[in-house]
Amino acid sequence: MTATMKTFVMKRIGEVGFMEKPIPADPGPNDAIIKTTTALVCTSDVHTVKGAIGERHDHTLGHEACGIVDRVGSAVTLFKPGDRIVVNAITPCYKCHNCQRGFTSQCTEPLGGWKFANIKDGSFAEYFHVNDADANLTLIPSDVSDEAACYTTDMMSTGFKGAENANIVLGGSAVVFGAGPVGQMTAVGARLLGAGLVIVVDNVPDRLKLAEAYGADVTINYNDVDAVAEIMNLTNGEGVDSAMESVGAQIPFENCIKVTRPGGTISNVGYHGEGEYINIPRLEWGVGMAEKTIKTLLCPGGSERMTRLIRLIQTGRVDPTKLTTHHFSFNEVEKAFWMMDSKEDNVIKPVIHFE
Amino acid sequence: MTATMKTFVMKRIGEVGFMEKPIPADPGPNDAIIKTTTALVCTSDVHTVKGAIGERHDHTLGHEACGIVDRVGSAVTLFKPGDRIVVNAITPCYKCHNCQRGFTSQCTEPLGGWKFANIKDGSFAEYFHVNDADANLTLIPSDVSDEAACYTTDMMSTGFKGAENANIVLGGSAVVFGAGPVGQMTAVGARLLGAGLVIVVDNVPDRLKLAEAYGADVTINYNDVDAVAEIMNLTNGEGVDSAMESVGAQIPFENCIKVTRPGGTISNVGYHGEGEYINIPRLEWGVGMAEKTIKTLLCPGGSERMTRLIRLIQTGRVDPTKLTTHHFSFNEVEKAFWMMDSKEDNVIKPVIHFE
Amino acid sequence: MTATMKTFVMKRIGEVGFMEKPIPADPGPNDAIIKTTTALVCTSDVHTVKGAIGERHDHTLGHEACGIVDRVGSAVTLFKPGDRIVVNAITPCYKCHNCQRGFTSQCTEPLGGWKFANIKDGSFAEYFHVNDADANLTLIPSDVSDEAACYTTDMMSTGFKGAENANIVLGGSAVVFGAGPVGQMTAVGARLLGAGLVIVVDNVPDRLKLAEAYGADVTINYNDVDAVAEIMNLTNGEGVDSAMESVGAQIPFENCIKVTRPGGTISNVGYHGEGEYINIPRLEWGVGMAEKTIKTLLCPGGSERMTRLIRLIQTGRVDPTKLTTHHFSFNEVEKAFWMMDSKEDNVIKPVIHFE
Amino acid sequence: MTATMKTFVMKRIGEVGFMEKPIPADPGPNDAIIKTTTALVCTSDVHTVKGAIGERHDHTLGHEACGIVDRVGSAVTLFKPGDRIVVNAITPCYKCHNCQRGFTSQCTEPLGGWKFANIKDGSFAEYFHVNDADANLTLIPSDVSDEAACYTTDMMSTGFKGAENANIVLGGSAVVFGAGPVGQMTAVGARLLGAGLVIVVDNVPDRLKLAEAYGADVTINYNDVDAVAEIMNLTNGEGVDSAMESVGAQIPFENCIKVTRPGGTISNVGYHGEGEYINIPRLEWGVGMAEKTIKTLLCPGGSERMTRLIRLIQTGRVDPTKLTTHHFSFNEVEKAFWMMDSKEDNVIKPVIHFE
Repeated sequence: MTATMKTFVMKRIGEVGFMEKPIPADPGPNDAIIKTTTALVCTSDVHTVKGAIGERHDHTLGHEACGIVDRVGSAVTLFKPGDRIVVNAITPCYKCHNCQRGFTSQCTEPLGGWKFANIKDGSFAEYFHVNDADANLTLIPSDVSDEAACYTTDMMSTGFKGAENANIVLGGSAVVFGAGPVGQMTAVGARLLGAGLVIVVDNVPDRLKLAEAYGADVTINYNDVDAVAEIMNLTNGEGVDSAMESVGAQIPFENCIKVTRPGGTISNVGYHGEGEYINIPRLEWGVGMAEKTIKTLLCPGGSERMTRLIRLIQTGRVDPTKLTTHHFSFNEVEKAFWMMDSKEDNVIKPVIHFE
Repeated sequence: MTATMKTFVMKRIGEVGFMEKPIPADPGPNDAIIKTTTALVCTSDVHTVKGAIGERHDHTLGHEACGIVDRVGSAVTLFKPGDRIVVNAITPCYKCHNCQRGFTSQCTEPLGGWKFANIKDGSFAEYFHVNDADANLTLIPSDVSDEAACYTTDMMSTGFKGAENANIVLGGSAVVFGAGPVGQMTAVGARLLGAGLVIVVDNVPDRLKLAEAYGADVTINYNDVDAVAEIMNLTNGEGVDSAMESVGAQIPFENCIKVTRPGGTISNVGYHGEGEYINIPRLEWGVGMAEKTIKTLLCPGGSERMTRLIRLIQTGRVDPTKLTTHHFSFNEVEKAFWMMDSKEDNVIKPVIHFE
Repeated sequence: MTATMKTFVMKRIGEVGFMEKPIPADPGPNDAIIKTTTALVCTSDVHTVKGAIGERHDHTLGHEACGIVDRVGSAVTLFKPGDRIVVNAITPCYKCHNCQRGFTSQCTEPLGGWKFANIKDGSFAEYFHVNDADANLTLIPSDVSDEAACYTTDMMSTGFKGAENANIVLGGSAVVFGAGPVGQMTAVGARLLGAGLVIVVDNVPDRLKLAEAYGADVTINYNDVDAVAEIMNLTNGEGVDSAMESVGAQIPFENCIKVTRPGGTISNVGYHGEGEYINIPRLEWGVGMAEKTIKTLLCPGGSERMTRLIRLIQTGRVDPTKLTTHHFSFNEVEKAFWMMDSKEDNVIKPVIHFE
Repeated sequence: MTATMKTFVMKRIGEVGFMEKPIPADPGPNDAIIKTTTALVCTSDVHTVKGAIGERHDHTLGHEACGIVDRVGSAVTLFKPGDRIVVNAITPCYKCHNCQRGFTSQCTEPLGGWKFANIKDGSFAEYFHVNDADANLTLIPSDVSDEAACYTTDMMSTGFKGAENANIVLGGSAVVFGAGPVGQMTAVGARLLGAGLVIVVDNVPDRLKLAEAYGADVTINYNDVDAVAEIMNLTNGEGVDSAMESVGAQIPFENCIKVTRPGGTISNVGYHGEGEYINIPRLEWGVGMAEKTIKTLLCPGGSERMTRLIRLIQTGRVDPTKLTTHHFSFNEVEKAFWMMDSKEDNVIKPVIHFE
């Protein structure tokens, strides 16, 4: 008789629910099975259920989690059952050509490092499977909480990479469009990397307030003012060195190009879910000659990065738990899930506690 | 009585012709006056006359030229009358914030380094003025012809920068869309920088033949085959490391994104003259997460770069004069000019000889 | 009759004193004359007087100053008499080949950007001359004090460049050897650029205390412990990502190589004044194969950088005036000067106020 | 009864010879066993036997080889018995922190990617073991010979990385000290990456002649002239942009620093086998302020890089077999080995053919 476990799945496009599934069998030689302790709900779980990456059936959701090592494969040397660990949303193989090139999030194929709740079951389950455990598991130090550690799996890694891609200049100017949880961490990243002026744009007052608490120098509510004009004013008409788009939509993407000075960088952080094209405004792009660079990213994974992200929590550079607005037990995960859709009760991030 | 000189001007949008103008007066303290000896006609002269940068009246055309120093300002220390020199199409000030940031082509403002035939008179004249002569003039060594030197002013500098921006990987794969004179030099640049596979795409057989003579490994005539499919085949379905667009049009730009592998770079070389937007195909851009970087450029100037470009001619790395298809005297420049529009007689570049 | 001014000079090696000199005559077309208001004394002034750069006679000292524009040359367009400005210690021409390559501190020749009190009179004078004023002068905003502005001229620019050269990794580990004023700013720079662990090593308790006030995570007094062993312990035996040397001496340089992990960077900030060789420990350098990079720098100048450094003061990222330990009038500059030699009274930086 | 195979071993410091050993048992899940077909002898094999990395007993030598896959582990998916493959001298795990940081040659610890004939048996054997086969094996295309493929394992990968580390500037100047096989490939790399002037320094006329055949623009025999003075002359007294040291000795290392212009790069390629320190000449290093960067490397491995190196052979960018001076059967390997010590008969590289 196979032991079973409770999982929270996408049953089909538009429908979610709990489901019993077998606990994952023995992992492959390089892999591990984790007993989940804490997880976060991500807006991209909602996108997935709405069909953004196509149909899925009885597919376990979730990709931001930590837990306890339950079993490891024969070739795993750095971890053992009982270890308290955290796993990045992205779990590359590290050996394919794209991984060797340094683009581990593009493991094997475009976006191929993204496996949880995409090409295999995710972590909204009592147990979950992790490939290439020696590189994808990270010990959580005793002075870091599960909750804080979970934020390194996606919010911090994605947001900070958004800033790392933006060629932040020491003392330079930076703007982040969107103050959701990833946008907040993008702005924190811009400040951590030395921007001398960090501007955050959104239309939700509570989110702008949180951005200020996280160290934004200026916040702009685009319901009140023309954000592009305001940013140009704040930079003496020159535009910013670095513009970051954390929403995944045409308007903020286009605004990023408009407010970036010649030679500056547009760092796209958001997932663009709609339309055949994303459009570059020709004139503000300098008719293709103003040396404005456009970069993109997918959350970088791996224990080496995770160790550094955890260190930033340990040495007080950032407290990601300010993003937490709600706590739920795993039994209540469906409620948390739908909140991420409705954004009701000013939700930013709900934490899910197992058992 | 002021001495006058013959110039070839844009009289208004759509109309060109010769005109007598005063020889430029004494230069400012940092500037110089050059007596023109040799020049090249550029397709962008044609764009300008068609109205691409707006109306101009009696505006001297031309930005690719070499000549003899006639007079220098009081603060010019490195050049003296009689020196045989070449001047890049782009003549920055080197002192403004954008220049200090390293973006000299964006001198003071977007594209602001582009002064000849844009914000001041160009070099289709018996004499022309050069700002900041110590940094913008370059001596032509005795073993380099005027004709060869003229190619460093734009074709080589622009094309090679297209390759430099493309993050060419040693032994990696690269494609250039467009085999006009800039496209040819872009492909040469890709090879000079270590690409292991250089593919060139165009639909003019003579230009593809020239690309092969310049060292392209594979040429694709897009009239005969689906270029995107062919490039994917040539790279085992992975796409190229580096894709360069030398045309300035939606289709090749879009194809660059389609054929670039995750983590690769799209280097835009062409001037995009039309439309409100240039469009990024969303799915092939990895929905904003495939780490495909888009870069742009404007021909880099300056004597330091020019010295290196000239060295590449001296040590036999490239012979740019293979681009020359026609020779004319300055009296015949109008004929050469209209050839660049009609592309008749398989013209690639016409050389203009003064006196 | 020529107006004269008071200057503080190196009379010859080992001897300093006041001297009357003519007020600088009209500047060249690109230059300016500044009326000094505030200055800082630098340890390198002491080195110079001791003969580090050879004999000088009646040479005005000083290179960290701000003041009021008195006169400008005919080609200066951005500044006018009366402007309150600050000037970096390094004043490049921006036009020579080295400047065009981006190495402005190496203007024309090695270290050639360093002109004040080296190849021309410095700023310990009632008036001083600045070459290439449009690029080398920076307006001081009204919310920034003279004293704070003076720190951007060398301490902040040099120290921060030390961190910029060190390839600081977000959340990575960094160590600074030496907690003098430049070392303090190097450590602040490392933190501003995202280091997750900043260690500072010195043997003066007050300086280590100041480093903590500036945000160092750990300080090590090398009189008490073996600094190399301690750093290896703090990094689980791996060594740091980035090691910065702010002293200019064999032991700290050597220790930097010893404590840097494979693939890490040693950033040399200090001026090495003695000996025929500086020595790399062969084994800890990985017998030339451990991918440890050694970089060096000379304080970067220019109004663009200065504007960013000033912004970091304006937005509260750093308060450089914590470095100030003493205040003197210009009449007392000799006392301040010798304090920088004796380091008496725990001096870090003395500020000199003119009239 | 275990099958045995013939191996060529270091018996102890100073002594080599043949030895029968068991054919490697089943590989681990990620590993493979290769039947050797062709190999090259490397000078570092000689260093090892002379004691450079300490005592070894009955240790199989050799790290440059290709062969046929004999057996693969259960988790190997990309290769199968019978595949004709080549293996880089360096075989990283790709998963440790150093590998994740991109420093795969420093796998786990300094130089830790170097396993063959260092921390495990090498490839001078009828069979040899390869860890992490999916990332460390590379298929040899049918148009590439075994002999050519063997050169990618170290000579091309090391030499080219020497050039990649040197920040070669397009059209810039470069010098390589040492024209042994790695030095030859370093110079080829410099040219492949766009150097406009490649200078090679050695004292063996045949090697300088080969450098010219490989495309060096100038060769210098340091027995005939002062190499440093000559290089300064060739660069108008400025020095080179990039200096590469392929010998591993104080004089060429020191000369590299002397001939590098401010802002240039010294790329150390050689293995420094002797002395407590390698010494930097203080004055020519600009007293630590001339922005001369010193980089080091260890041969980079991995199938992605190997694929690109092979492509450079396929598309005719380099023919490494010009380095071959001798051919031997495996039975004669000892003779080839000692030739690499004596350098007799103008040996550059001897190829070893198995059965």
